[in-house]
Amino acid sequence: MTDQLTIQMPDDWHLHFRDGDLLKETVPATARCFKRAIVMPNLVPPVTTTALALAYKSRIEAAIPENSHFEPLMTLYLTNATTPEEIVKAKSAGIVASKLYPAGATTNSDAAVKGIKSLYPVFEKMQDVGMLLLIHGEVTDADIDIFDREKAFIDAYLKDIVADFPALKVVFEHITTKDAVDFVNAASDNVAATITPQHLLLNRNDLLVGGVKPHNYCLPVLKRNIHQKALRDAVASGAKKFFLGTDSAPHEKHNKESACGCAGCYSAWSAIELYAKVFDDLGALDKLEGFASHYGPDFYGLPRNKGTITLCKDAWKVPSLVTLANGDEIVPFFAGETLTWKYTS
Amino acid sequence: MTDQLTIQMPDDWHLHFRDGDLLKETVPATARCFKRAIVMPNLVPPVTTTALALAYKSRIEAAIPENSHFEPLMTLYLTNATTPEEIVKAKSAGIVASKLYPAGATTNSDAAVKGIKSLYPVFEKMQDVGMLLLIHGEVTDADIDIFDREKAFIDAYLKDIVADFPALKVVFEHITTKDAVDFVNAASDNVAATITPQHLLLNRNDLLVGGVKPHNYCLPVLKRNIHQKALRDAVASGAKKFFLGTDSAPHEKHNKESACGCAGCYSAWSAIELYAKVFDDLGALDKLEGFASHYGPDFYGLPRNKGTITLCKDAWKVPSLVTLANGDEIVPFFAGETLTWKYTS
Repeated sequence: MTDQLTIQMPDDWHLHFRDGDLLKETVPATARCFKRAIVMPNLVPPVTTTALALAYKSRIEAAIPENSHFEPLMTLYLTNATTPEEIVKAKSAGIVASKLYPAGATTNSDAAVKGIKSLYPVFEKMQDVGMLLLIHGEVTDADIDIFDREKAFIDAYLKDIVADFPALKVVFEHITTKDAVDFVNAASDNVAATITPQHLLLNRNDLLVGGVKPHNYCLPVLKRNIHQKALRDAVASGAKKFFLGTDSAPHEKHNKESACGCAGCYSAWSAIELYAKVFDDLGALDKLEGFASHYGPDFYGLPRNKGTITLCKDAWKVPSLVTLANGDEIVPFFAGETLTWKYTS
Repeated sequence: MTDQLTIQMPDDWHLHFRDGDLLKETVPATARCFKRAIVMPNLVPPVTTTALALAYKSRIEAAIPENSHFEPLMTLYLTNATTPEEIVKAKSAGIVASKLYPAGATTNSDAAVKGIKSLYPVFEKMQDVGMLLLIHGEVTDADIDIFDREKAFIDAYLKDIVADFPALKVVFEHITTKDAVDFVNAASDNVAATITPQHLLLNRNDLLVGGVKPHNYCLPVLKRNIHQKALRDAVASGAKKFFLGTDSAPHEKHNKESACGCAGCYSAWSAIELYAKVFDDLGALDKLEGFASHYGPDFYGLPRNKGTITLCKDAWKVPSLVTLANGDEIVPFFAGETLTWKYTS
């Protein structure tokens, strides 16, 4: 019986640090056991330029604990005003990716892209300079059912983007459907996807049965159990196209438990343990390391991390609340639930 | 242009008054413009006997405003312990219907029926004495997707019940799917359905797009827009099998805006106006009276009401809050929204 698990140091290829004082909470949470993280640019206002990204990076770095070697990987928020010149500038400043948000799809995405084809000169330049395109793949048309929005995005946009820019590296972020898994599996080696702990652990019954549970509400929304199963099968297969991206996204408790609850699950303090639970439940613990530590850097063209982390079998309970220095409270994802694996060092 | 609408006095064929001090809020709200209401028996503990129903009726009657002629119509909560003898007793005490809750399907339904076939002797007696069977038609198996549960109930139970008791009058309560509309339309004249304002006005995008909205959370949960359209088409058709049942169900604000929000929309203070909006939007105002005032009593075998109510075109806003005498707050359904029609007298 395995009661200890050592894997190469992992990274988180999709998360939200937010800004200001909240960085003192979110950055140490992720730096706890991830070496790097792809930082989403959906601040208010969004991180649309190299200058804004570098300033944001400095604020994040100021929040890294002293003994940590954590490194934030910055991204640019694409809008219809983004220019190819900005892409060149960003790339040479070390910004590794740009993020495409269809307008209205998620928290703070109102500024994002309405006519995706108008961004083709930008995609062209990204392909040229080797910058990755990260996509929140949901359409936002009001008459399209929320559960159909990821598949509709694949059909309406993603197939075209991938066909029109075959050398552009595209990450289909936080995928939630069998359709997305199938699309990524069938696409070229330049297309990959991140998968969150919540979409592996839960399905929409966990949001809506026995009461509506805002702490399980995220976007893209949890789907039907057959989609959850497809995601679980994808990670258990060990396919290198699927890698770790928590989409950890804190919202204060009063903004979740409200008349209009915000989308996002704050999973940073238990992220690697949540994934370990999934892989353990699937009998696929041997696949965790590839998913968490290898396939992400390989796809991004970055070196794998030096060093390792170790998890032990040691049951612990995810705290009910995280209290910030100013007294604000965040209910973490899986609050009060017991996890079997615990990060130790 | 019609700016006044007079219809025969309507009834509400499905609602939740709750108990205790809350009756001082809920009973006047419904007595405002409904003459009768079918009172759901899912108290804690549930109203499982004639004696409990009559005692509950007295408590409701004590909360009826002085100038009102409102009349509560009582129901019995079926459990596996319900006997045919209790049905006879209830019928002779004036209890018009019994309610079948599959265990776990809705608020306070844990006591309800696990093996529906074991209730067949009770259904037999109900058929004999002319008591109606009101059904919350959802299966509760954990592995069945919440959006499939109504259709699954039709296939697993309702078809059998209707076939096995052809003379039993069955009301399929608060239907939410095209499957239910089709089932009711195809069934005998002894099968009818109630439809709530929320299922006519909203679909699941209204629960989940742009934030999770607990005040639009009810059970059966809001469905995809094609199902909403089927319900709207059903009422616009003027078919006598579909009639008014609000399922008005108050929960305190803090129990809705919480980590596990309760199911139910409190619509009593605006119910007839909400339905008027639906029928007006559908260009079917001439069908409102049948739905609200004729088909219900006709199906129940009760006289239609004497008297009328009048609504005027007079824009008004649904209040943001209802504050109870003890200070507790309820957010009514459609809070802050503007309605065009207003009950006047």
